[in-house]
Amino acid sequence: MEATLGELHAALEQLGMKPRLRGNPDRRIRRVSTLEDATEGDVSFLSNPKYEKLLQTTRASAVVLRPDVVAPEHLDLIQADDPYAAITALIVKIHGYRRHRQVPPNRSACTIHPTAQIGEGATIHPGATIDEEVVIGRGAVIYPGCYIGPRCRLGDGVLLYPNVVLYDDTRVGHRVTIHSNTVIGEDGLGYAPIGGNWVKIPQIGHVEIEDDVEIGAGCAIDRATLGRTRIGRGSKFSNLIAIGHGTQIGEDCLLVAQVGVAGSVTVGDHVTMAGQAGVVGHIRIGDRATIGAKAGVTHNVADGETVLGAPAIPIHAMRRQVAYVARLPELNKQLKRLQERIAELEKQFERT
Amino acid sequence: MEATLGELHAALEQLGMKPRLRGNPDRRIRRVSTLEDATEGDVSFLSNPKYEKLLQTTRASAVVLRPDVVAPEHLDLIQADDPYAAITALIVKIHGYRRHRQVPPNRSACTIHPTAQIGEGATIHPGATIDEEVVIGRGAVIYPGCYIGPRCRLGDGVLLYPNVVLYDDTRVGHRVTIHSNTVIGEDGLGYAPIGGNWVKIPQIGHVEIEDDVEIGAGCAIDRATLGRTRIGRGSKFSNLIAIGHGTQIGEDCLLVAQVGVAGSVTVGDHVTMAGQAGVVGHIRIGDRATIGAKAGVTHNVADGETVLGAPAIPIHAMRRQVAYVARLPELNKQLKRLQERIAELEKQFERT
Amino acid sequence: MEATLGELHAALEQLGMKPRLRGNPDRRIRRVSTLEDATEGDVSFLSNPKYEKLLQTTRASAVVLRPDVVAPEHLDLIQADDPYAAITALIVKIHGYRRHRQVPPNRSACTIHPTAQIGEGATIHPGATIDEEVVIGRGAVIYPGCYIGPRCRLGDGVLLYPNVVLYDDTRVGHRVTIHSNTVIGEDGLGYAPIGGNWVKIPQIGHVEIEDDVEIGAGCAIDRATLGRTRIGRGSKFSNLIAIGHGTQIGEDCLLVAQVGVAGSVTVGDHVTMAGQAGVVGHIRIGDRATIGAKAGVTHNVADGETVLGAPAIPIHAMRRQVAYVARLPELNKQLKRLQERIAELEKQFERT
Repeated sequence: MEATLGELHAALEQLGMKPRLRGNPDRRIRRVSTLEDATEGDVSFLSNPKYEKLLQTTRASAVVLRPDVVAPEHLDLIQADDPYAAITALIVKIHGYRRHRQVPPNRSACTIHPTAQIGEGATIHPGATIDEEVVIGRGAVIYPGCYIGPRCRLGDGVLLYPNVVLYDDTRVGHRVTIHSNTVIGEDGLGYAPIGGNWVKIPQIGHVEIEDDVEIGAGCAIDRATLGRTRIGRGSKFSNLIAIGHGTQIGEDCLLVAQVGVAGSVTVGDHVTMAGQAGVVGHIRIGDRATIGAKAGVTHNVADGETVLGAPAIPIHAMRRQVAYVARLPELNKQLKRLQERIAELEKQFERT
Repeated sequence: MEATLGELHAALEQLGMKPRLRGNPDRRIRRVSTLEDATEGDVSFLSNPKYEKLLQTTRASAVVLRPDVVAPEHLDLIQADDPYAAITALIVKIHGYRRHRQVPPNRSACTIHPTAQIGEGATIHPGATIDEEVVIGRGAVIYPGCYIGPRCRLGDGVLLYPNVVLYDDTRVGHRVTIHSNTVIGEDGLGYAPIGGNWVKIPQIGHVEIEDDVEIGAGCAIDRATLGRTRIGRGSKFSNLIAIGHGTQIGEDCLLVAQVGVAGSVTVGDHVTMAGQAGVVGHIRIGDRATIGAKAGVTHNVADGETVLGAPAIPIHAMRRQVAYVARLPELNKQLKRLQERIAELEKQFERT
Repeated sequence: MEATLGELHAALEQLGMKPRLRGNPDRRIRRVSTLEDATEGDVSFLSNPKYEKLLQTTRASAVVLRPDVVAPEHLDLIQADDPYAAITALIVKIHGYRRHRQVPPNRSACTIHPTAQIGEGATIHPGATIDEEVVIGRGAVIYPGCYIGPRCRLGDGVLLYPNVVLYDDTRVGHRVTIHSNTVIGEDGLGYAPIGGNWVKIPQIGHVEIEDDVEIGAGCAIDRATLGRTRIGRGSKFSNLIAIGHGTQIGEDCLLVAQVGVAGSVTVGDHVTMAGQAGVVGHIRIGDRATIGAKAGVTHNVADGETVLGAPAIPIHAMRRQVAYVARLPELNKQLKRLQERIAELEKQFERT
């Protein structure tokens, strides 16, 4: 939706962001773009100082940035303490979220079991399968190729992109979004070695996804063997993430692509796990902890702690180790020189 | 299926587990639960000593545990040398395995090629595709969204969860289970650099999955360029595992989530690979070897060996290295002190 | 297609490969096989010297190998400077690429939106979904379970294996192949922390896949937040690869399985990334750079550089570090011995 710079400024003010406008409030803005791609009619932003030099060359009509950044005179500006939050608000205002075509459930084009209950205003695309005793909330959108297994319960406003699979008994809260080809509730790696064979342990637990969670594409979240695997309210996952059986992820956590968490792990609230991090089973990650990229966590992590490396240790210790390891060739040389000096001293001493 | 504690005890005896019952054999048991979640009517278990203190607070009616564990007097117990095996047997007895609704093949709801042969009692869900000259065994269950490519052959009792894809010519043995969104038999990364371009090498091999294998969700197993990629009898895979072209995995192996094995690797029998481990191409992993979590294996691993780290080395050597690296700051300090003492000696020596 | 050894030799000559034939030009060849699997009528090859001893036992009728390799007298040979390129040409000649059954679009079996345009000779399998305003090129092949979102544009000869999902506005060039269960254009992990909550940033960018790209199975390529995520002409991906939002991959790159590249990364042309490598956001990987297996790249990589380790450093430095770390126990011992010798000197010195 097109707007003037003045209207955008006012919208940010209404959100309590205290923005400051420099330039022409009547300038028309049609699009949000990066500094590099922007043209006439675009608003852009600068958040990461790394890209500051692009201010000199951008063709954006206006830029959102921090008050202390010096920008060329010809650029119209919205100065905001948190440009990232401000541009987010502007993208929502100008572009909005993806709209989903409404397709009323058509039982001949999908496979909807007669015992399934579909909420008012829900869209079930042709090619989706809704199995026995499933309950789907109001306004949910289920894309083609999704399979919703027996007795699953989905809240209002749930959004499943194409080819999402929910195994039997999965619980999904309100306003949960799951991206394509993610699987929720498959059996975990549960076998007991009995008489030299792997005997499969029936996985009789389930998965519970709480409200306002978003899960990326191609993830796999094991059902619990007993009880439940839980993804806490408001947590956000990127792609290709594996969560083991019985693991509990807290609220408002952020998991980056290719993270793997083994089974029976308890993760607190507001935890961040960077890309390709891994966590062994049966441990606890405290609230507000940060797990660095590629970290291999083998022990409990305390509240608020940041760990890095494999095996993971507190980040300052890991950085120190990395620095010392880099100096090993030099250390070795020093040691050699000491040996020579001592040999020399010993020789001289003998002589005296 | 509900049972009395005495009946459960008898069932374990029949399996030759020599359990000992302490408490009321007439107590009715309806469910298996974790110690934390259990309530009246539940049997629980203690296998990992880490959770022993939960015995004090559990509300389970009975607990399966090792004979040497001391439990509160009020708890009914089944003592067994291997509580994990015993509780597995009880879950099977009380809850059983997942049951699959029988859906007779309906050629108008699926796409079944006229040349495909479907075994007696097989369930082909609507929305599955069975391509030319496919042969499917008796009692197989094929969920919606599965695609079975030309000339695939599936044994009896095969179970494919939704959206599994088998490329052309894949062989699947008896009683194989494949979880959702796993792909078997895609082309591997096979290109020859000819004249500065990557020329695709036709991948004319196939994949063979032997009897009693279970593959997790979201895995990808490349077909061989020539010959076959093989997953040996009884092996079990977790989720998001990548297997390269022409690799041979032995029997009864256990691969944890996000493991990656490059092409032309030979893996022996009873091998365990922990989460996020990786193996380079063209090497051999011996029988009963264990690859630690996140290990990066670059050389052959001997039978029975356990390796860890990247590059992976025997686990005791890796643990020693980790300890030494942690002591590097201290080592550096010692070196500095030595330098001072030598300088002092040299000075004194000069004076004399 | 069966051929004589002489015909195969002539075919390689025509490609300018200057092969030399030793043996019977009339020998009939029906198949390409590995040295191990080959039987009468098969041509095989030796490229990796590791497998040279198999020449003694192979039952192949002919072998393609380098001119300097000594082979048993009874084997017919095609000597070529690049046996890998030569055997590739022979596989193409004898076996050809996978053929795809032509299935004319059947709007009652698929879900094809009335506004979608399907090119001449395209195959749309039953069970595929083509959404609003999609444009598909000539001769494209779309397998069952694929979902092509609103306004996607696919070039000529595009090949989508089953269950590929393209989100709205994805652009796919000519002759692009995407393997099963890969997702292109899902939203990246884009949230702004506003008032203690994660507020979703509408992801209004898209993905562009250039001509002649091949993407493996189970990958996930995020759409850009603004602008585009780009996969450059001729690049080839293996399986389970994650690409973050706004990242640019150059031309003719090779990405091995389970590689993860975070968002806003610029990767040059002809870059190789080995298995399970990871790259943090907002950095640049130069042309012809090589990222080793499991490397964790945290800084820019120069043109032509090879890096290894986590954090990744130039490969020779990493190898040196690994060697020094392995010698740490020995270093420690030397240090201890020096301490003793100094203590001894100090004692003697005191006495004098």
